[in-house]
Amino acid sequence: MALPHLRDHARIALVGDQTSIQQELTRHGLSPNAFDVCHAPEVIGMDESPTTAVKTKPKASLNVGMQQLQKSQLDVFISAGSTGAFLTSAVLNLGLLEGIKRPAAGALYPTSEGISLLIDVGVNTELKPDSYVDFARMGTVYMNSLFQLDNPSVALMNMGEEKSKGPKVVQEAYEALEAAQGLNFIGNAEGRDLPRGKADIYVCDGFTGNILLKFGEAFYELLRQRLSLDEQLTDFSYEEIGGLPFLGVNGNIILGHGISGPKAFKNMILRGQELMEHNLLENMRHAFQETEHS
Amino acid sequence: MALPHLRDHARIALVGDQTSIQQELTRHGLSPNAFDVCHAPEVIGMDESPTTAVKTKPKASLNVGMQQLQKSQLDVFISAGSTGAFLTSAVLNLGLLEGIKRPAAGALYPTSEGISLLIDVGVNTELKPDSYVDFARMGTVYMNSLFQLDNPSVALMNMGEEKSKGPKVVQEAYEALEAAQGLNFIGNAEGRDLPRGKADIYVCDGFTGNILLKFGEAFYELLRQRLSLDEQLTDFSYEEIGGLPFLGVNGNIILGHGISGPKAFKNMILRGQELMEHNLLENMRHAFQETEHS
Repeated sequence: MALPHLRDHARIALVGDQTSIQQELTRHGLSPNAFDVCHAPEVIGMDESPTTAVKTKPKASLNVGMQQLQKSQLDVFISAGSTGAFLTSAVLNLGLLEGIKRPAAGALYPTSEGISLLIDVGVNTELKPDSYVDFARMGTVYMNSLFQLDNPSVALMNMGEEKSKGPKVVQEAYEALEAAQGLNFIGNAEGRDLPRGKADIYVCDGFTGNILLKFGEAFYELLRQRLSLDEQLTDFSYEEIGGLPFLGVNGNIILGHGISGPKAFKNMILRGQELMEHNLLENMRHAFQETEHS
Repeated sequence: MALPHLRDHARIALVGDQTSIQQELTRHGLSPNAFDVCHAPEVIGMDESPTTAVKTKPKASLNVGMQQLQKSQLDVFISAGSTGAFLTSAVLNLGLLEGIKRPAAGALYPTSEGISLLIDVGVNTELKPDSYVDFARMGTVYMNSLFQLDNPSVALMNMGEEKSKGPKVVQEAYEALEAAQGLNFIGNAEGRDLPRGKADIYVCDGFTGNILLKFGEAFYELLRQRLSLDEQLTDFSYEEIGGLPFLGVNGNIILGHGISGPKAFKNMILRGQELMEHNLLENMRHAFQETEHS
């Protein structure tokens, strides 16, 4: 277990049913008071309607965690719960940052050149052109804050390099990105550019991004198994990556994979800490204020 | 060069500028008359507008090849030219099969269970729900004809398993697929299902399919390079796969990658031969006639 090590650097609170949590701690040979506990007796199942569940279960761990974050009792909240419920609870309890219409989930992944961000990977099924610009801007602040990338490049996911390619909304997004101030927009990217690190940030709708992300994960797993790799290329593993930052809401939140184990949780906590240490929220507010006033 | 071996099984004609072709043959130590040549003096560049180029250059190799195919002077036509021009020329010269509104390109790829087909991978940027059904039906005939798969399973690419997931058109496509006769529709598939072989056929719009296909190709290349693999996993290589069948038009055509070398061309020819040997067109006509009359 990596938690004792992490505890040297962060104070960790566990959100959930107090009795169950304390029983688990005891089962792992720890004192039942080893961690702060935020009691949350209700549970949202993976198969529940996110909106209904979040609204009718105020004491679900997702809601309690987001509320603690909103009250600044926590700096960061991480979860491996239902994506839909996570997002709904975040928007409801934290609200959106000023100037942002739609939040989005980003996925970091290694390329032959370094690391890139794909945004959105599952929040928005259908988009207006302006939201692509918001995603590009949020991605820019994120890559700039977390990796000190100055003026990171942004590409639009498409099925060809020419601006006349793709569905109408994507062509309109191209125009909007080209016209936007303060972005290093380099044009369209194709699927083949993703592993090659053509851009620092790729923007797309959540439908496309979600299918790409899950395909990449499973394709990597298939190759790993067929090659009997254990240690190599671990930087492609979701366990090492930890979780996805949800950008655009008024709080630092990280969503993990539904099947996350101890290693993934450790890395989710680290990803969350990074958001805080690099003042992501403050930088994000600042960037969108500048845009509003420009 | 693999061609002399192939020539034992197929009569190969080369379509293009006669003088250039004969010079190339001589340069490779072959007789200038080693192959039949269909003279096609005009050339369509990769950067030309497909519609304009196809219409204003009747003697371009794509048009000449398609015309020869239409007149049954050829059984199969393969090309590694511009995708847009290839499709435009095919529809113009060959026409669509009766009952099919939109043609589509399919991509075969290996999974942990065998082989699957992703359709469409780049022809149609935006779709009506009915076209997903046509693609499912064309894919069914293809997998049945080429791999003797009885009642192959069809899944709809989406960002979740529930039928309420995804953009409106995808939700409507789900309904249409569920209502269609003669398909083994098993519901939605997620990106992670693609390498796992959940279904024999995955249907999606050409925007999504194109990005997935190109991402998969380049991701495989990146892993192969980082692992210094030479021979392993070659079944993922586009060179081994050869080319993509274009389904829905009245002729056997295969489109190769723009960067195809000798090995890829050999495999494109083999893929084309398979279409003919397995009576794909006849089976396709039959399947759509049955649907029309049912």
